[in-house]
Amino acid sequence: MDLRNSGFKLAPVDTNLFPGGFNNLSAAFMPLAVQAATAAIARICPEAKNLLLVPENHTRNKWYLENVATLAAILRQAGLEVRIGGLHVEEKTEVETATGKKLLLEPLKRDGARLGVEAFDPCAVLVNNDLSAGIPDILKGLDEQVLLPPLHAGWALRRKSAHFAAYDEVAAGFADLLRIDPWLLNPYHAHCGEIDFQARAGEECLASNVSMLLEKIRAKYLEYGIQDAPYVAVKADAGTYGMGVMMVRDAAEVRDLNRRQRNKMAVVKEGLAVTDVIIQEGVHTVERIEDKAAEPVVYMLDRFVIGGFYRVHGARAADENLNAPGMHFVPLAFEQSCTLPDPHANCDAPPNRFYAYGVVARLALAAGGLELERGAPA
Amino acid sequence: MDLRNSGFKLAPVDTNLFPGGFNNLSAAFMPLAVQAATAAIARICPEAKNLLLVPENHTRNKWYLENVATLAAILRQAGLEVRIGGLHVEEKTEVETATGKKLLLEPLKRDGARLGVEAFDPCAVLVNNDLSAGIPDILKGLDEQVLLPPLHAGWALRRKSAHFAAYDEVAAGFADLLRIDPWLLNPYHAHCGEIDFQARAGEECLASNVSMLLEKIRAKYLEYGIQDAPYVAVKADAGTYGMGVMMVRDAAEVRDLNRRQRNKMAVVKEGLAVTDVIIQEGVHTVERIEDKAAEPVVYMLDRFVIGGFYRVHGARAADENLNAPGMHFVPLAFEQSCTLPDPHANCDAPPNRFYAYGVVARLALAAGGLELERGAPA
Repeated sequence: MDLRNSGFKLAPVDTNLFPGGFNNLSAAFMPLAVQAATAAIARICPEAKNLLLVPENHTRNKWYLENVATLAAILRQAGLEVRIGGLHVEEKTEVETATGKKLLLEPLKRDGARLGVEAFDPCAVLVNNDLSAGIPDILKGLDEQVLLPPLHAGWALRRKSAHFAAYDEVAAGFADLLRIDPWLLNPYHAHCGEIDFQARAGEECLASNVSMLLEKIRAKYLEYGIQDAPYVAVKADAGTYGMGVMMVRDAAEVRDLNRRQRNKMAVVKEGLAVTDVIIQEGVHTVERIEDKAAEPVVYMLDRFVIGGFYRVHGARAADENLNAPGMHFVPLAFEQSCTLPDPHANCDAPPNRFYAYGVVARLALAAGGLELERGAPA
Repeated sequence: MDLRNSGFKLAPVDTNLFPGGFNNLSAAFMPLAVQAATAAIARICPEAKNLLLVPENHTRNKWYLENVATLAAILRQAGLEVRIGGLHVEEKTEVETATGKKLLLEPLKRDGARLGVEAFDPCAVLVNNDLSAGIPDILKGLDEQVLLPPLHAGWALRRKSAHFAAYDEVAAGFADLLRIDPWLLNPYHAHCGEIDFQARAGEECLASNVSMLLEKIRAKYLEYGIQDAPYVAVKADAGTYGMGVMMVRDAAEVRDLNRRQRNKMAVVKEGLAVTDVIIQEGVHTVERIEDKAAEPVVYMLDRFVIGGFYRVHGARAADENLNAPGMHFVPLAFEQSCTLPDPHANCDAPPNRFYAYGVVARLALAAGGLELERGAPA
């Protein structure tokens, strides 16, 4: 979960169901990840112990491979037999991670309604591939196995707007329990379909929604006496990796997109035109690491918060997208657990801040559950 | 779980279902305990959040109170509302732990088939009192609440011999899976009832069982070429705190008990005569901390290994009881988790040794489950 903490507001801004970056977590919390995996497996595969991991096809991104190695290590230490099946691997291939670990990628083998690799019939298939290029046939109809997450969690079918609609409900219920304004943990958002950036179609929907959101934010800022300048993020509704994101401070900006901006927004992945966008209230970040803007990222495994890190981005301002494609960011592992609040310390003291991050991340997780339940194919 | 590691053998020697000493665990693994508690609560009290803790009546033992404070902190951080009910507390009493934490002990209040304290109706009652003085009426018949552990887990009803009979089965099944000799993780044991140490009744049963066990151990030592001197521990079958324990190297020793030895074995708690003993194969300890004999103690919460410590006892030899009443021992928290084995390191390297401790502790836990299931009142 990507979060933003503006001091007056703490909210999720992106929920990733196929997270990379497990290698960025503090090694000190590895036992927490292993225990969470153990609890999950007891429910998912109580009798079996074979799991197939299907990663992204980023075999040349050694840091991504490091993530795959870390994820596999967590699952192995939880007692599973883990093999790694590559979607585009023709024969057994050994690859090396950033720190020199060896990973064996094996060709997938389909057998009826089951997927495996040679001489390996898993109980569960864990996909670490966001499926933004579509759902490969080989993953369809695996009726005899547990497929995690379900296929409609991938960007081929998933929409950010559906996630944040579910989050509206979760945040409202939680705020009601605490008798606080749900806005304090929920960014406003709106949705525009039938966009065509190249043909400049849908600009009016975009501009009027941007206007409307900025107006609502301004009213809240006035209510709470906040001096910051309101802004919104315009994001591809099915985008990933921070692609297709634009920060806007005025509706006029989306009416006057230049060619470069239109190109940037039009396509998040080769051949995939952006037709739907979500317009989301921007949340400033007050977190600073060595004077650089930082954004907390919380990791969960099953229903457990297992840690997180700061995405630190020196070149970007507090109201910019810190998950910028191709740019350098520094992951800085949380030094403290997200599960040990200290009722005697002030509410912004590190253990309490990390705890709050974990709470909001769990709300977003609950929203993810609701979203997937509603979006499940009939 | 108290374990012994002799290098050639790794076995549980005592399974405590009401452990004190949570305060001796490494603070670094607190998140692991909290997460385990969270998983347990989700099963036990999915809808409620009130828990009543009923500790021992050791209000003057400040280190025991420290344990109660730690246990309460774990449960609170897992999201529970925790109150502490004293079995012999007449009015609200604030006590101070060894490190100066304040604990509020409240008088128990019974309401039909429910137990609580004033204005507090818990979903579950967690007993941290081993009930060796008998089962208080106020704990009987709590049919509307979850009582943990069940009453027959207390020493009023529990017998070590039933536990180790269950462990025989678990260890045999596990050894079969691994195709190893179950003796490598299971101490021989035997049982004598109708003992009366003061009247010198039952000495013959004791002596013949000691003889028989020493003979069986000698045969195994021969089989594996072990040079150590065999010994057995004679323990009160319902004893606790390391009370009523005697180390024996020859059957003649139990035929010729002097008055002091008889007194020591006859009573483990005021007014409670020892009539049953378990005779258990002694397992030497090879663990040394600063040249002193050390015994690993593994802590579990629900089904999870959450850490442990070494009981280090300078004045005692490798084949003596390290859990000696009233004597000084040093708890030394495990610095490593018990859940991260390293398949590339040798089998005695710390991560693997700790992992093995966790595995054997979990076997003993499974035996505890079997024991309680079988011993449950009809």
